[in-house]
Amino acid sequence: MSDDLIGVVNAGSSSLKFALYEGERRLLAGQVDGIGVRPQARARDAGGEAIAPPALDPPPQTPAEVVPALIPWLRERLGSRRIAALGHRVVHGGTRYAKPVRATPEVVRDLEALVPLAPLHEPHNLAPIKAVLALDPDLPQVACFDTAFHRTMPEVAQAFALPRAMFEEGLRRYGFHGLSYEYIASVLPEVSPRLAEGRCIVAHLGNGASACALRAGVSIATTMGFTAVDGLPMGTRTGELDAGVVLHFIQQRGMDAAQIQDLLYRKSGMLGLSGGISSDFRDLLASDDPRAAFAIEVFCYRTARQIASLACALGGLDGIVFTAGVGENAAPVRARICQALGWLGLAFDATANAAHGPRLSAPGSAVEAWVIPTDEERMIARHTRALALG
Amino acid sequence: MSDDLIGVVNAGSSSLKFALYEGERRLLAGQVDGIGVRPQARARDAGGEAIAPPALDPPPQTPAEVVPALIPWLRERLGSRRIAALGHRVVHGGTRYAKPVRATPEVVRDLEALVPLAPLHEPHNLAPIKAVLALDPDLPQVACFDTAFHRTMPEVAQAFALPRAMFEEGLRRYGFHGLSYEYIASVLPEVSPRLAEGRCIVAHLGNGASACALRAGVSIATTMGFTAVDGLPMGTRTGELDAGVVLHFIQQRGMDAAQIQDLLYRKSGMLGLSGGISSDFRDLLASDDPRAAFAIEVFCYRTARQIASLACALGGLDGIVFTAGVGENAAPVRARICQALGWLGLAFDATANAAHGPRLSAPGSAVEAWVIPTDEERMIARHTRALALG
Repeated sequence: MSDDLIGVVNAGSSSLKFALYEGERRLLAGQVDGIGVRPQARARDAGGEAIAPPALDPPPQTPAEVVPALIPWLRERLGSRRIAALGHRVVHGGTRYAKPVRATPEVVRDLEALVPLAPLHEPHNLAPIKAVLALDPDLPQVACFDTAFHRTMPEVAQAFALPRAMFEEGLRRYGFHGLSYEYIASVLPEVSPRLAEGRCIVAHLGNGASACALRAGVSIATTMGFTAVDGLPMGTRTGELDAGVVLHFIQQRGMDAAQIQDLLYRKSGMLGLSGGISSDFRDLLASDDPRAAFAIEVFCYRTARQIASLACALGGLDGIVFTAGVGENAAPVRARICQALGWLGLAFDATANAAHGPRLSAPGSAVEAWVIPTDEERMIARHTRALALG
Repeated sequence: MSDDLIGVVNAGSSSLKFALYEGERRLLAGQVDGIGVRPQARARDAGGEAIAPPALDPPPQTPAEVVPALIPWLRERLGSRRIAALGHRVVHGGTRYAKPVRATPEVVRDLEALVPLAPLHEPHNLAPIKAVLALDPDLPQVACFDTAFHRTMPEVAQAFALPRAMFEEGLRRYGFHGLSYEYIASVLPEVSPRLAEGRCIVAHLGNGASACALRAGVSIATTMGFTAVDGLPMGTRTGELDAGVVLHFIQQRGMDAAQIQDLLYRKSGMLGLSGGISSDFRDLLASDDPRAAFAIEVFCYRTARQIASLACALGGLDGIVFTAGVGENAAPVRARICQALGWLGLAFDATANAAHGPRLSAPGSAVEAWVIPTDEERMIARHTRALALG
């Protein structure tokens, strides 16, 4: 049908990504970076060729301020066709939203109550929804949550050993990167029916990183917790950290919460471990500084151990999948992680890994290993189409 | 020799345990509890029969104030024999003390610099040493550290993904319960030469709980971190907790560090998960409240997952050992953990487990499982004898 066009918006603190889908076909995509500092826009068409991006005049001070430029730009490119619905990535859906939801004014008000659970992300995700509600209230919008896919986790996997009442209040492991895991689960049947039906761990290794245990495509455990700072070490985030270290920062070093947050979210991880060399694995892999090598060693060691822990939650392991920037591209990182999992029955094919697979395990390996590119925006487009048009 | 008597002191915040050894033979043992509130002393002889404990007059306000009553009481019971040396349990030895050390005034001053690393424990451990230095400066004293046994861990296992400079400053995973693990490692050759030489995980499950990966009897990874609040859930401590939860407590709930510390150390773990029923597994196992069952489920789930993670650090698993109060006595807890590890090749013998083993795995099981009672005080006595008399 002529109006089956779905827009996708993924807004962060200083960037906004957008895309347009017709069915499964992506017609265009782009992003605005450096918002609030020196905003720069770029866009590409269905073939990946650069096209003129939305004009940023006046320069947006927040990602939501991109919206008034984006909508006419999209309309101009579409001529007589119209956008049927707009889907948004929203980090936190709390305990209530286990599925995508129509982003009505009532729902947005409900979601604003979740801001304290994700103060660094949720406001940026909601602001563009509110901007569109003001500009074009009749355009259907859908909120797609990073947490929703994990609401299938059993309570035992969601619980911290905190007072029971706090669990009921929402202090639990939510997990994130759910749209990425859901996309991988959606393509697993084509890649490996055995993994689609069995016990599979997906390692979403990007600047943010987590891993998820899937049983028959359903999340039963994941490494990120109440926030996105827990679990695997990341580009600039600590991952798992003794809570006593935070108390030490306060009681012995006199740091306040803002300083600790800045340290744990922006100065730790690969950037911190490498002594400031880089948060980017490409830089670290190219460096001959032993601190860069140590940062990578810590990342691979912790990731392998977390995968083993998730395998225990699954009661065994049929295969692993690497995805996201580092998982799809950093062959030496995949090699170290796979080698550290050899004891679980993963026979690693170094030649296949160097070629980015897609299959990294040798024929007959008890545990399979794969590279599968993720596509969170396509997942948002699918949900949005189903909910707004279905 | 007639003066080969070794005293052992294990001082906590409100209790002090003591024992006297002649070679490997324990001549007597006792403890004072409720110090500062309503102190009560008890003691037993080599055969386990109750004997008159030290008189507590005036009532001690701190564990160190027990020392002036304890030394004459010991001398009275010994007649002409004398104590050759006194060994102390000290929680933290920092990065410097990888072995027990003679507790000279210089060393005690050095150890006082570590108080910020263990503010809840270290001052109580050091106070009795200082009391004895003042009362009887010629009595050799030895400090035995809970952290020392883990100094063999590779740096990759000690590192948090914090800035590299913080690792050098001492912000690392130290690990605790080292005297317990060292004792188990010392008796493993008699129990199972395969585990003594191979890949063994010891689960020290008491009111405090941790697990340690031993390769040929040497610690290569452990679950406790910078502090003793990390790792496994415990009687009243959280174990592993998203550091973002601590920031949430400060930023969203307005809690201060003392309130958070009280929550994480004293109101969480089994006590918190069970909704206040108890921190004691005996009570939880006897309860028919579903919250008690859930607390036990979380404990077993997290412990099994951490054991799988440690197995990855070892590159495979030859066996596990349960020790300490819960590990030695709570058969249903051991059963759940062993069953959750069945996928690793652990064939569990439920009948043997009900009888507390000592062997819990079926003949031919690829992964062995054992119960071995720990004895940290005996380990302190051995170290003290070797260092003071050897």
